[in-house]
Amino acid sequence: MGKQEEWGFKENHELHAAAGFTIRNILESIIGNIDQKRSGKPMIHLGHGDPSIYPCFRTSVSVEDALVESIRSANFNCYPSGIGIDPARSALAEYLSKDLPYNITNDDVFLTAGANGIEVLLTVLARPGANILFPRPNYPIYEARARFSEIEVRHFDLLPDKGWEVDLDGVKALADKNTVGIVVINPGNPCGNVFTFDHMKKIAETARELGILVIADEVYAHLVFGEKPFVPMGVLGDMAPVLTLGSLSKRWIVPGWRFGWIAINDPTRILQQTGVVASIKSCLTISADPPTVIQGAIPSVIKNTPKSFFLNINKLLKEASDLFYEKVKEIPLVTCPHRPEGSMFAMVKLNMPAFEDVVDDTDFCMKMAKEESVVVLPGDVVGLKNWVRVSIGTEPKVLEDAIGRMKVFCLKHAKH
Amino acid sequence: MGKQEEWGFKENHELHAAAGFTIRNILESIIGNIDQKRSGKPMIHLGHGDPSIYPCFRTSVSVEDALVESIRSANFNCYPSGIGIDPARSALAEYLSKDLPYNITNDDVFLTAGANGIEVLLTVLARPGANILFPRPNYPIYEARARFSEIEVRHFDLLPDKGWEVDLDGVKALADKNTVGIVVINPGNPCGNVFTFDHMKKIAETARELGILVIADEVYAHLVFGEKPFVPMGVLGDMAPVLTLGSLSKRWIVPGWRFGWIAINDPTRILQQTGVVASIKSCLTISADPPTVIQGAIPSVIKNTPKSFFLNINKLLKEASDLFYEKVKEIPLVTCPHRPEGSMFAMVKLNMPAFEDVVDDTDFCMKMAKEESVVVLPGDVVGLKNWVRVSIGTEPKVLEDAIGRMKVFCLKHAKH
Ligand SMILES: Cc1ncc(COP(=O)(O)O)c(C=O)c1O
Ligand SMILES: Cc1ncc(COP(=O)(O)O)c(C=O)c1O
Repeated sequence: MGKQEEWGFKENHELHAAAGFTIRNILESIIGNIDQKRSGKPMIHLGHGDPSIYPCFRTSVSVEDALVESIRSANFNCYPSGIGIDPARSALAEYLSKDLPYNITNDDVFLTAGANGIEVLLTVLARPGANILFPRPNYPIYEARARFSEIEVRHFDLLPDKGWEVDLDGVKALADKNTVGIVVINPGNPCGNVFTFDHMKKIAETARELGILVIADEVYAHLVFGEKPFVPMGVLGDMAPVLTLGSLSKRWIVPGWRFGWIAINDPTRILQQTGVVASIKSCLTISADPPTVIQGAIPSVIKNTPKSFFLNINKLLKEASDLFYEKVKEIPLVTCPHRPEGSMFAMVKLNMPAFEDVVDDTDFCMKMAKEESVVVLPGDVVGLKNWVRVSIGTEPKVLEDAIGRMKVFCLKHAKH
Repeated sequence: MGKQEEWGFKENHELHAAAGFTIRNILESIIGNIDQKRSGKPMIHLGHGDPSIYPCFRTSVSVEDALVESIRSANFNCYPSGIGIDPARSALAEYLSKDLPYNITNDDVFLTAGANGIEVLLTVLARPGANILFPRPNYPIYEARARFSEIEVRHFDLLPDKGWEVDLDGVKALADKNTVGIVVINPGNPCGNVFTFDHMKKIAETARELGILVIADEVYAHLVFGEKPFVPMGVLGDMAPVLTLGSLSKRWIVPGWRFGWIAINDPTRILQQTGVVASIKSCLTISADPPTVIQGAIPSVIKNTPKSFFLNINKLLKEASDLFYEKVKEIPLVTCPHRPEGSMFAMVKLNMPAFEDVVDDTDFCMKMAKEESVVVLPGDVVGLKNWVRVSIGTEPKVLEDAIGRMKVFCLKHAKH
């Protein structure tokens, strides 16, 4: 038997680089910095969009019942088709059509394993030389996955002084004949903003002018609690083709179910004709599927979740938003330019030069975790250096406690 | 508003090519060829490894209970970590350790969204110039996913005359200094064979000699019903590092739960030292996760599934295997060189020249679907032209009916 010191396999540094882009990894190192003995306080996690651990944000019992029924039927233990089972696709088509001026059908809806829809669309659109437009700030899984697709990323700005609207002039300046699409996230992560219909119309017009499609990330659909209603981008699908990403994670507060979808909002059938829809199907054939047993629960989840559940969640988020926006004004050295009105996040700007011994946003987050056991996300991860993203999806008391600790932290580290 | 006829996005033919490699797509077109009016008979699907629709193969009630409890606890609605939650990893480590001469821990087990483990490992091992050794015949998701990783595929043969053992001389001839690993599937898909311990030892010795790791696809672990016991490749992990792929799909008959794992069987810690384990973690950070709610059920699934359930499933498969092997002898124009003794498949060779009007394996499958409503898989898909793969995971009566129809079909199409 030969012995060999050199093995043929190696570490994959490209994967480390991609993982380094993710909220998950950054939060892990921030949480790792918590020193509860020092702070004497329990951890408050305002770093991610997952309020499911708080009893007041527990999903509706009808949602749990739906999955239990799916299991007990024993009809959904089998492999699904790559695009998902028909009853679930039909239920979602009907659900999504309610907000559209036209109907979509089961043929327009494809089921995905949570955020895997992002990977699927980037894989479909990639080709040598192609580029795609992402917002800055952004949900960073887009950047992480783009590294593994042959597609160049170009960033346009969201404008804090204009309520985080898209810098449309910037978009036009970035695009060229190799641009395939633009990503817009509404309600916004990380900014907590909601687009007006007028602004969305301008985005659609710009997309049409440029000959590109719109990826409308509406994972936070209907989680709105300000003045502006939620309007799906698909409403403008006749202007430019729209690929909508949706998820059970946020509205139904079951991110652990890892269930999402891609909806084709394209009444003029451009995506069909150009073969993009067929390419999505092919990609789904070789991609991870959401469990059949969860797909089997979808018709009942859609039909039976009471309106009161949704109303209550939005009420809780509205209270959290108001509380946060008012209280944060009392904290020196930070400003929140825009009251959160959708999703469950706020972006907060750090007045870096006014800090004594905090050098940047990451340093801020690491030190605040250590001293106050409060976790927020460095803006750097989402593309905005020296900002932080705060999740307001927590119980009001807990949020108030966290803001108090942030204040203590800032006072302590302010220049005198 | 500008109008533009040319859009920037295009069809992705590379994805169509990859999807074309899959069992899913081929079966879809074969099933599409069924003409029940013509056959007057219900479809019998012997094309895939999914017996879950048959009442006798229904999963254990304890498995269903485990998931119901996980839901009702409301503890598993949250996002999981990328590598999976600890209680599930620990339970699997304990379960897998029972068959090993050493113990693995939760740190050695990573949870995957079903077969996604295959994609993860290929992504981890890929680098420019690297190559990997796959069996022929093979489970074709490997080939489909390898197209999307920068890794060259080289095929060694499984030898039908030697009970589908690995052609080890072929392996040695194929490997070079850029070879990173070898894939072995045991119990075998598509061949239904089980490796002896002696043969596995030779595989491990060869891997060590070549300085490569072993990917041991043990998705059919413990589904054995011949003379040979199931021995996990990890038993030989001290000889060459082994990455084991496992799944709930087959042993617990819940493929629709899409839950699998990667286990590190490497007591000498080579994969740790070379950074392969860290690379797997990074890849999982940006990959689809199995739902937390399913992860939450795993400890109870592992602990509470009664032995009698497993014994009964293997008894059913043994009966099916015997029935199949005996009855198929009575069919002219086909031969099954090896009685299935593991997994739930048999490979059957078509005596092509003896057919009057069937040109190859795909033609055989398409025509048999049309005329007899029986679905089997063309061997071409798994790498063996003019063979077919038959799933024996069905109720005995149904299997007998299917074999009868196969016989009618062969008699009808034989040369006179
Ligand atoms: C903007 C955005 N898109 C997509 C996702 C993915 O959501 P999920 O994978 O839970 O469906 C998230 C999750 O936080 C998100 O914030
Ligand atoms: C050899 C082999 N590996 C992996 C898989 C994937 O199994 P799953 O995705 O159900 O865990 C299968 C499924 O048929 C298989 O046959």
